[in-house]
Amino acid sequence: MKVVTSAKIRRDLREHLLNTYPQIDFAFHPSIAEAEKDLTDADVLITYGEDLTDRHIAVAEKLQWIMVISAGLDKMPFEAIKQKGITVTNATGIHAVPMAEYALAVMLQTARQTKTIIEQEKNKLWDRSPLMTELHNKTVLIIGAGQIGTQTARLTKAFNMKTLGVNRTGADFAPFDEIIKTENLLDMLPEADFIVSVLPKTPETDGLLDQSAFAAMKKEAVLINMGRGNVIHETDLIEALNREEFSHAVLDVFNEEPLPADHPFWEHPDVTVTPHISGISPQYQPRALEIFEYNLAVYERGHGTYWNWIDLNKGY
Amino acid sequence: MKVVTSAKIRRDLREHLLNTYPQIDFAFHPSIAEAEKDLTDADVLITYGEDLTDRHIAVAEKLQWIMVISAGLDKMPFEAIKQKGITVTNATGIHAVPMAEYALAVMLQTARQTKTIIEQEKNKLWDRSPLMTELHNKTVLIIGAGQIGTQTARLTKAFNMKTLGVNRTGADFAPFDEIIKTENLLDMLPEADFIVSVLPKTPETDGLLDQSAFAAMKKEAVLINMGRGNVIHETDLIEALNREEFSHAVLDVFNEEPLPADHPFWEHPDVTVTPHISGISPQYQPRALEIFEYNLAVYERGHGTYWNWIDLNKGY
Repeated sequence: MKVVTSAKIRRDLREHLLNTYPQIDFAFHPSIAEAEKDLTDADVLITYGEDLTDRHIAVAEKLQWIMVISAGLDKMPFEAIKQKGITVTNATGIHAVPMAEYALAVMLQTARQTKTIIEQEKNKLWDRSPLMTELHNKTVLIIGAGQIGTQTARLTKAFNMKTLGVNRTGADFAPFDEIIKTENLLDMLPEADFIVSVLPKTPETDGLLDQSAFAAMKKEAVLINMGRGNVIHETDLIEALNREEFSHAVLDVFNEEPLPADHPFWEHPDVTVTPHISGISPQYQPRALEIFEYNLAVYERGHGTYWNWIDLNKGY
Repeated sequence: MKVVTSAKIRRDLREHLLNTYPQIDFAFHPSIAEAEKDLTDADVLITYGEDLTDRHIAVAEKLQWIMVISAGLDKMPFEAIKQKGITVTNATGIHAVPMAEYALAVMLQTARQTKTIIEQEKNKLWDRSPLMTELHNKTVLIIGAGQIGTQTARLTKAFNMKTLGVNRTGADFAPFDEIIKTENLLDMLPEADFIVSVLPKTPETDGLLDQSAFAAMKKEAVLINMGRGNVIHETDLIEALNREEFSHAVLDVFNEEPLPADHPFWEHPDVTVTPHISGISPQYQPRALEIFEYNLAVYERGHGTYWNWIDLNKGY
């Protein structure tokens, strides 16, 4: 059995895999270009999921399982994979801890005017007048109540926030105080002090946050997008901020990444740009390989339930 | 009965007091200079506690109760107050929510390299390489396990941190995983990724964090001081950072405030200076006046237990 990687795996984790599974022929490569020569007889491929084309799937004649060690699957050649009956699993959930911490970090950053305080420090200016606010007793609306949204909700509840969620079904579950259906989003937006989007890129999420959504927000509201950039209508966003329909946007994801140097987001005073860092963590690969090893046992046994099995008809 | 303020009280709260207590003669002043003329027949004084001298106490012949709407009492003329048998209460506890949020804000700020990310944004630089860490599974040591320390501990537990505390007795209580006595501080310091001091200024806390403490810390440790500046030996701190004995200090309080423009803390790359903002909150005065009103009922009744009664022999 041969396992090929097109994702650069940390040395300590490579050694762990080699030591733990001596029966497996591992071919570790840092990119798909280098992995390609090993694809023809690969049984399993470990990838970040952004590097595969129809051609790679055609070349990989024996391929039975693709382990994607990220959560976003929007660049996968699903039709080719489906036709060959290849199993796909991903690493959904491993982003929950760092992304929830990112959400709280930027919520506190805006509430406590961190940019202003840091600028003052550079100028050796002792000025206690920037207005501080609290998260305590505020309301947060988390759009996308999956694993990341739920972990974020756990933290916001600890800050004594009223925690609302949005998903397809609208069925309530803890730690959310209330969940509403996506179609009722506009009704709930006026209540939120913070809106956090963790939505994936799908045809349904395209431009979900557009002028009608921004117009429904509180003047003081802060919008955080750490899902996918397509969810936000970027031109509408800038116009809404210019009209002061809401207060500030913290954006970690964009329609085009890296965000082009001439994009108006960079300089807009009411936008904070972070370079798609919400999910970055030193625990990323260890957590992803925990899922791989669990699924490897299912694969070798030939039966059982994969952790994070992907329904290729839905794409998530 | 006459209540005088030398603290500027928000208009809506002044109106609330006037409407709620028509039997009381309120004299609202924004400073002690203006309040002075009303002190001679004042029964009660509401103050931030930093403006009183022996002379004010001598002038205030009828004064029976001083409500200090802050927590730091180190500038109060205690001897004069004690001799006249004046009751003192303060607003300890109202800082717990904003200060705990400050602590988490700066912990996340250091863990997620916010200063670097904000600098990159200014330069329109998309760079995902700054190393991110998590609070999850890290250890925090909170020195001073009172109301502020306990609220901070509640939040750190929500982030799945191992949460250690330090107080005089060493008796464990939730949400701390473990409490140690102040005298055993050096034994516990090597375990901590984050050290948060919320200690007040007393003779015992003077220079508690000195060279011996810094030498005991992890190389990666981040120190946060949001109690009082006297706790830290400032020269030792700079030398320890220069020797890389620990990683970073976030300081909100100082021996001299405002921090002088020529103080080396301002420019030190491993120090973050914030201008004593950890306790600032729009909820400050509403929470302080909630304590005042509770104690006013005790005062008018002539018996009962004051909320936050100060033992003048201890000074806290």
